[in-house]
Amino acid sequence: MTSVPRIGIDAMGGDFGPKPVAEGAALALREWPGRFRLTLVGDEAEIRAHLGVADITVVHAAEKVDMAAKAAAAARRSGTSLGVLTQLHKDGQLDGIFSAGNTGAVVASALLGLGRLEGVSRPALAAFFPNVGQGTVVLDVGANAEVKAAWLVQFAHMGSCFARYLLGHENPRVGLLSIGEEESKGNQLVQEALPLIKAARHLNFIGPVEGRDLFKGTCDVMVTDGFTGNVLLKTAESAASFLGRSVRDEVKKDPLAMVGAFFMKRALAKLRSRIDWQEYGAAPLLGVNGVCFIGHGSSGPRAFRSAIHTLTSFVEQRVNEHIREEIQADHDTAA
Amino acid sequence: MTSVPRIGIDAMGGDFGPKPVAEGAALALREWPGRFRLTLVGDEAEIRAHLGVADITVVHAAEKVDMAAKAAAAARRSGTSLGVLTQLHKDGQLDGIFSAGNTGAVVASALLGLGRLEGVSRPALAAFFPNVGQGTVVLDVGANAEVKAAWLVQFAHMGSCFARYLLGHENPRVGLLSIGEEESKGNQLVQEALPLIKAARHLNFIGPVEGRDLFKGTCDVMVTDGFTGNVLLKTAESAASFLGRSVRDEVKKDPLAMVGAFFMKRALAKLRSRIDWQEYGAAPLLGVNGVCFIGHGSSGPRAFRSAIHTLTSFVEQRVNEHIREEIQADHDTAA
Repeated sequence: MTSVPRIGIDAMGGDFGPKPVAEGAALALREWPGRFRLTLVGDEAEIRAHLGVADITVVHAAEKVDMAAKAAAAARRSGTSLGVLTQLHKDGQLDGIFSAGNTGAVVASALLGLGRLEGVSRPALAAFFPNVGQGTVVLDVGANAEVKAAWLVQFAHMGSCFARYLLGHENPRVGLLSIGEEESKGNQLVQEALPLIKAARHLNFIGPVEGRDLFKGTCDVMVTDGFTGNVLLKTAESAASFLGRSVRDEVKKDPLAMVGAFFMKRALAKLRSRIDWQEYGAAPLLGVNGVCFIGHGSSGPRAFRSAIHTLTSFVEQRVNEHIREEIQADHDTAA
Repeated sequence: MTSVPRIGIDAMGGDFGPKPVAEGAALALREWPGRFRLTLVGDEAEIRAHLGVADITVVHAAEKVDMAAKAAAAARRSGTSLGVLTQLHKDGQLDGIFSAGNTGAVVASALLGLGRLEGVSRPALAAFFPNVGQGTVVLDVGANAEVKAAWLVQFAHMGSCFARYLLGHENPRVGLLSIGEEESKGNQLVQEALPLIKAARHLNFIGPVEGRDLFKGTCDVMVTDGFTGNVLLKTAESAASFLGRSVRDEVKKDPLAMVGAFFMKRALAKLRSRIDWQEYGAAPLLGVNGVCFIGHGSSGPRAFRSAIHTLTSFVEQRVNEHIREEIQADHDTAA
C-alpha cells in the first residue's frame, strides 16, 4: 500500500453509466482533497465526456457486465470494466475497488480474482443500517444463500472488525438473527451456530436478536445467512420508500397538509440525510483478500462520493489485517 | 355453525388485560350490531369490571398463560383462559377464537386442541401487510421455523383462499419469497419448492419474489418459511415505527417544522388508519381444524375490534372449507 489509498471504480457499473460516477468522484475530491487517488475503469471516451477534473486516472475497458448477466460467466470475462478493475487490484495497482454493477458478478469476480482472506471460509456482504442508536452492520445480506454454522462465527468476527475500525464501536455487540430472544427459538442453523458463537472468546456476543432489533440499535453487528439477510435488507429499504411515498400521496390530497409539508421541508431533508442509504451507499464484501465494495445499481453521485470515502477509511484502518488477526486469535484460543 | 358466528376471545391474553378487550368488544358491537355473538374468557370479576354492555357472555377461567411461558407446557394447562377458550371451540360452542397472548402458546394450544385441517401438514401463521396495491398476505410468519418444500405449496393454497375470500382478490397472485426474480437464485428450500409450486394447477403462481415486493404489491400472497417470514414481519413493523419516531424527533428540533406538522395532522391520521396494524390486528393460524386468530401482545381496543370483524368474516366465508377443497382438488389433479 502506498501512503495514499488508491481507489478504483467500475465506471460502467450502475444503472446510469459513467455520469454519476464522474460526478461523485468530483464531489469526493473536492471534499477530501489529497486523501486518496482515483482510477475510473471503463469506456474511456464516455468517461472523459463527464470528467471535469483532471486529477483522475482513466483505464480503458472495452466491454461491460450487463446487470442481468449470469454472475459466474460474467466474472470470467476479462475485458469488462469489472474484470480489468479486479485485475488492477489483484496486481497491487489499486488498494480498494468499488462497483455499483451486477452484485452477483462483482462477488464472483472478487472471489475468483482476489480469493479469500486467511481463515475465512466464505466472504459475506455487509450492509449498514442507520437506527435509533449508532447504526447496525448486518451480514451476510446476499453473498451466500446457504451457510454453515461455522461461517456465521467468521461473519461475526468480520462484522465486529468493521464496526470497530470503521464505525467506532469500541466493543461491538454481536447479535445472532433469530425469531425470539430465547435461545430455544430459531431454526436449525441458529441452534447449531449458538454454541459456536458463544465459544468464540474474542466476540462480544449478546445472544439471539429479532428483526425488530435492526432499528432499535440493540446490537452493532447482526449475523445471519445471506438468504435471510437479503430479505431483511430489501424489506427494510422498501418499507422506507413505501412509507415516504404514502406520506407524499396523502399530503397531496390535502391542501392544508401541503402547506404543512412546506414548513417541514428543512427537518425532513435533515432526516433524509441521516437515514438515506446514499450516505452509506457501499456494502463491503468482507472476507476477500482485498478491498471490494458493492453499491446499489441506482447509485447517484452522492452514493459514489460516500463509497469513495468509506473505501478510503477501510484501507487506512487496515480492516482486513484486523479480521485476519481476530480470527487467528480465536483459533489459537480454541486450540 | 349457527347463523350468527359465535366469536370467543381470550380476555387475559395481551399486555393490558381485559380492559382493551372489553372496550374493543363494545366498539365492534356498536359498529356491527347483530352480526356476531361474543364470549370473553378469563377472570370473570375482572372482565365484568370493564364490561359496560350486557350483550356479551363471560366464561370464567381462573388461570392465565404468562407471556413468557414455554409454549408447549402452557398449551397443556387446561384451566387457563386460553385452554378454556380452545376447548369451547373444540366442543362446537364457538365458531372462532382470538387471543393476543403468548403466540407460541396459542399456536401450540390450537394444534393440540383443534388439530389440522384435512390435507394440511402444518398450519401457518399469516400476516396481512398494507402496501401500494391491495395488500399482501405473507405466510408463514412464525409457526414453523423449519419447513419442508411441500408445506410451502400448502401455505400457498391457504394464503390464496384467505386472499380470495377475505381480501377479495379473485385470482390471487402467489409469489415465493427468494433473493432475486431469477429461478436460479434462492436457497435450497426455494429450489426444492419451485417445481412443486409450479406444478400445483390451482395456484396463480407468478414466480420468485423479493423482500421489496412486500410493499410494491407485486403479489397478493407471499410464501416463505416461518423463520424468514418472522424476520420480514418484525423488520417491516420496526422500520415503520423507526421512521415515524425519526420524523417526530427531527420535527421537535425545528419550530417551523412543528407548525408544519400541525397542518399535516389530518393527512397523517388518515395515513395511519390505512397502514396501522391495529386495523388488521389479527393473524389467522391457517390450516388448523378451526378458526384461530392471534394478535399482538400490545393490542389496543381498535385491534380487538378489527379482530372480531375479521374472524366473523372468516367464519361467514367458510374459508376453511375452501382451503380443504382447493388442496384436495390439487391432489386429485396431481394423481
